[in-house]
Amino acid sequence: MAELSAESGIPVATIKYYLREGLLPAGERTSPNQARYGEEHVRRLKLIRALVEVGGLSVATVREVVAAVESDQAAYKVLGVMQGALTGSAVDVSDEDREWATGLLGALAREHGWKFEDDNPVAGMLVGTVCAIRALGHQALLDQLGRYADVADRIALADLDTIDAVGSMDRIVEAAVVGTVLGDRLFAGLRRLAQAAETARRYSEW
Amino acid sequence: MAELSAESGIPVATIKYYLREGLLPAGERTSPNQARYGEEHVRRLKLIRALVEVGGLSVATVREVVAAVESDQAAYKVLGVMQGALTGSAVDVSDEDREWATGLLGALAREHGWKFEDDNPVAGMLVGTVCAIRALGHQALLDQLGRYADVADRIALADLDTIDAVGSMDRIVEAAVVGTVLGDRLFAGLRRLAQAAETARRYSEW
Repeated sequence: MAELSAESGIPVATIKYYLREGLLPAGERTSPNQARYGEEHVRRLKLIRALVEVGGLSVATVREVVAAVESDQAAYKVLGVMQGALTGSAVDVSDEDREWATGLLGALAREHGWKFEDDNPVAGMLVGTVCAIRALGHQALLDQLGRYADVADRIALADLDTIDAVGSMDRIVEAAVVGTVLGDRLFAGLRRLAQAAETARRYSEW
Repeated sequence: MAELSAESGIPVATIKYYLREGLLPAGERTSPNQARYGEEHVRRLKLIRALVEVGGLSVATVREVVAAVESDQAAYKVLGVMQGALTGSAVDVSDEDREWATGLLGALAREHGWKFEDDNPVAGMLVGTVCAIRALGHQALLDQLGRYADVADRIALADLDTIDAVGSMDRIVEAAVVGTVLGDRLFAGLRRLAQAAETARRYSEW
């Protein structure tokens, strides 16, 4: 374990915590107080740490995502589990609000050639989000939905080019996890920098 | 409090929890077991709930954001506090990694006319994120940085148009909070739908 810590740059206490929490598979035991860890453990450790510390995911969410990555399910199923875990539980909305939001988002999806299905956790999250924005009276944000959707199409092309560049299938799933969790953070940060610059341009006194 | 609950649609137990946690200012006490709550309480309650339940922020982060919104500081200072609270603490990176990441991101920022300063929490978050992506070996994601930055510029224009559409100054700060927290969720969701559609286009067997 000391070697695993040195190799990955992650403290022994943190590794023990990840093992206890079931995020990292146990090493191959070679004596009562020694175990062998391989390259895969080092990779997995780095992935877990990135998801927890940089991506800000909870240990419970990482456990779900890691279990899906390790399973023998088809890649699209793994990605579905990951999206569900990342999206969180849906927020309660009234039937009237749901109908309005589904109409708004469904029309947008059709325009962009996207699927918008009730049982998709992402669709549920979007319904809750647009309802909350409307309840807060921020119609101006909803007025920009079309522009946000155009930008989403553009960024999805870059996202998929990233995935295409990865050769092997098991690395593709990992790349999608990294691209989703860290890619969202990365883009959120760039968006902040661009917003700050645009704010300075428009409101020079800020 | 029963009326406040009916008006806001938020259970009394949740309102009491927000009061205890210091997220919501106390009402004006009119008798030992009655207090008067105004329109502002209803607004604030809806905002808190949206940030916690839809935005997924911790109660501690919401407390920081709300205190900043309520303070008499200049809008840009409030937005700075909010960005710091949302961005979280910086991740440790080695000096060598930091130098590499700062070089990469600094060049990108210059190209786009953005400020990239060491003491900016967003800059710290971006440094940690690109270092984690590199450590995981996902260079393909970093190869797309330029495209992500172009898209960030486009979305920042839509974001600022949203803010411009808000009239009064105290609503501007709230609009920026909503636009940042819920706007990020909204865009992340649209990005997922666009990715799914593009995935289906490229890998029809998925």
